Amino acid sequence: MYIPTYEDVVVAHERIRPYIHRTPVLTSSYFNDRTGAELYFKCENFQKAGAFKARGASNAVFGLSEEQAAKGVATHSSGNHGLSLSYAAGRRGIKATVVMPRTAPEAKKEAVRGYGGTVVECEPSTSSREAVFAEVVAESGADFVHPYNDPRVIQGQATCSKELIEDVGELDAVIAPIGGGGMVSGSCLTLSNIAPNTRIYAAEPKNADDAYRSFKAGHIIADDAPQTVADGLKVPLKDLTWHFVSNHVTDIFTTTEEEIVEAMYLCWQRMKIVMEPSSAVAIAAILKNPEVFAGKKVGVILTGGNVDLKKLPWA
Amino acid sequence: MYIPTYEDVVVAHERIRPYIHRTPVLTSSYFNDRTGAELYFKCENFQKAGAFKARGASNAVFGLSEEQAAKGVATHSSGNHGLSLSYAAGRRGIKATVVMPRTAPEAKKEAVRGYGGTVVECEPSTSSREAVFAEVVAESGADFVHPYNDPRVIQGQATCSKELIEDVGELDAVIAPIGGGGMVSGSCLTLSNIAPNTRIYAAEPKNADDAYRSFKAGHIIADDAPQTVADGLKVPLKDLTWHFVSNHVTDIFTTTEEEIVEAMYLCWQRMKIVMEPSSAVAIAAILKNPEVFAGKKVGVILTGGNVDLKKLPWA
Repeated sequence: MYIPTYEDVVVAHERIRPYIHRTPVLTSSYFNDRTGAELYFKCENFQKAGAFKARGASNAVFGLSEEQAAKGVATHSSGNHGLSLSYAAGRRGIKATVVMPRTAPEAKKEAVRGYGGTVVECEPSTSSREAVFAEVVAESGADFVHPYNDPRVIQGQATCSKELIEDVGELDAVIAPIGGGGMVSGSCLTLSNIAPNTRIYAAEPKNADDAYRSFKAGHIIADDAPQTVADGLKVPLKDLTWHFVSNHVTDIFTTTEEEIVEAMYLCWQRMKIVMEPSSAVAIAAILKNPEVFAGKKVGVILTGGNVDLKKLPWA
Repeated sequence: MYIPTYEDVVVAHERIRPYIHRTPVLTSSYFNDRTGAELYFKCENFQKAGAFKARGASNAVFGLSEEQAAKGVATHSSGNHGLSLSYAAGRRGIKATVVMPRTAPEAKKEAVRGYGGTVVECEPSTSSREAVFAEVVAESGADFVHPYNDPRVIQGQATCSKELIEDVGELDAVIAPIGGGGMVSGSCLTLSNIAPNTRIYAAEPKNADDAYRSFKAGHIIADDAPQTVADGLKVPLKDLTWHFVSNHVTDIFTTTEEEIVEAMYLCWQRMKIVMEPSSAVAIAAILKNPEVFAGKKVGVILTGGNVDLKKLPWA
């Protein structure tokens, strides 16, 4: 598999610039006082389609040849990647097909359609998903854009910490939530090149701690069906993201469900921003391990803001 | 009563700069597409103490002589002004006393104490409030900072649209929610001086439409005890705010409770920001009167973000 370079990231950033927000970096005297750290929150919850995934999806979509673009793109993520791919394809005026279990919440299907994507339903099993997806690709010739194990996607996600460093200068540490490892891999790619002294931490729900266990074991461990409120972080590492995580991450912290919900609540209450439970995992990890971050200048990636406002985890 | 001038606003801005956030201005392609307007949201929900009121309170507190400051400040607002006055007094290291009905939610009392203010309870009646407040002032010599009918407070609120114009250039219109009229008066004061072609609109809950009726009647009409989800907007105009509103406001729009909650929901969902129902009134007014705003460059003041996350109006 092709390992992307920082030169690719610079190209990706130019390519996607018209289609993404350069998201703001917020600070919070509350969280600074509480942690003793100087925290810089990179607000990808304000990103197009509501999550950093718009970066990688836009890079994949706008990097396609005209010929390939005419056949469209496809994926099988019912989360932010599906939305983002639909968004990016819509901006290019090409077709995006998202294969989703027929049991997925109607709101998620509606959201994909709202961004112009086409939903194709499968049964709620891996075998059905793979069969239906293979059929879609065979029929349409659509380009498969994996949610994270794709160099184009990682190049796109890598533009996030590029902006962060450009905007706030060098950092002692950056922390991001980890699921499949796309954002963390992008951060590794950028920081190891332009800010090699910046330590990279990942934060993961204890209930879906496969990245943590992989990191400690030295090889990929995938869980079957972890359950966590941080629903963007259930997926396992794959070879490309493992490459970056195993080479560049300093440590991975895990947090309980209660800690995640409490951190999310505090962030909404104090910073007045809507972000999803997955984003809160990074804040929870800082609150839980203040000794690691106190006195340091730390970038915190708030990964997304797509949450069901009528079903909040503390209600 | 002293009518503040724009020179006062410039002085106020210098005075309060160290104690307030220069809040960001956000845009939303969703709301632009939906309204046909070019909207610039001035995010005072990100302000210190969670609302624009920190501007006026800081100006009042930091403008006090040493002698007066030593005696502290006092008010009888149980809402954002009480919080903001406590915040500002805390920054100066002086005492803030907030008289509140003993029946006020414990969370509001805790919030005032959280910012370092002292809560003094009264019975839930105007006569008790006035008696207790008079006692507090007589005993302490504290300076009474009215939530809006005070030149120092209006000078402070006026710095909000000053920043807005500095950051985005001239606007065709600015719209803000109206309760007692402090923010609208401040906007009038600034815009009539530095952007005299900018039309100033106010938005009010239909259930608390005393400013609307005052505006149409040509004199102040005060309601007894209006009920609305936009709880920051229940108070009536007073002489100083009436001066600005009657001289500089182009029109006042009213919105129903359902329209307010719908606008608030949309703003949280699409812009990923936490703001209070009072702020949503301005957005609701734009959605309801698109013909007034389409094709225009419009500033929208999002006044605050203090809301009970466990009791959302759509839950």
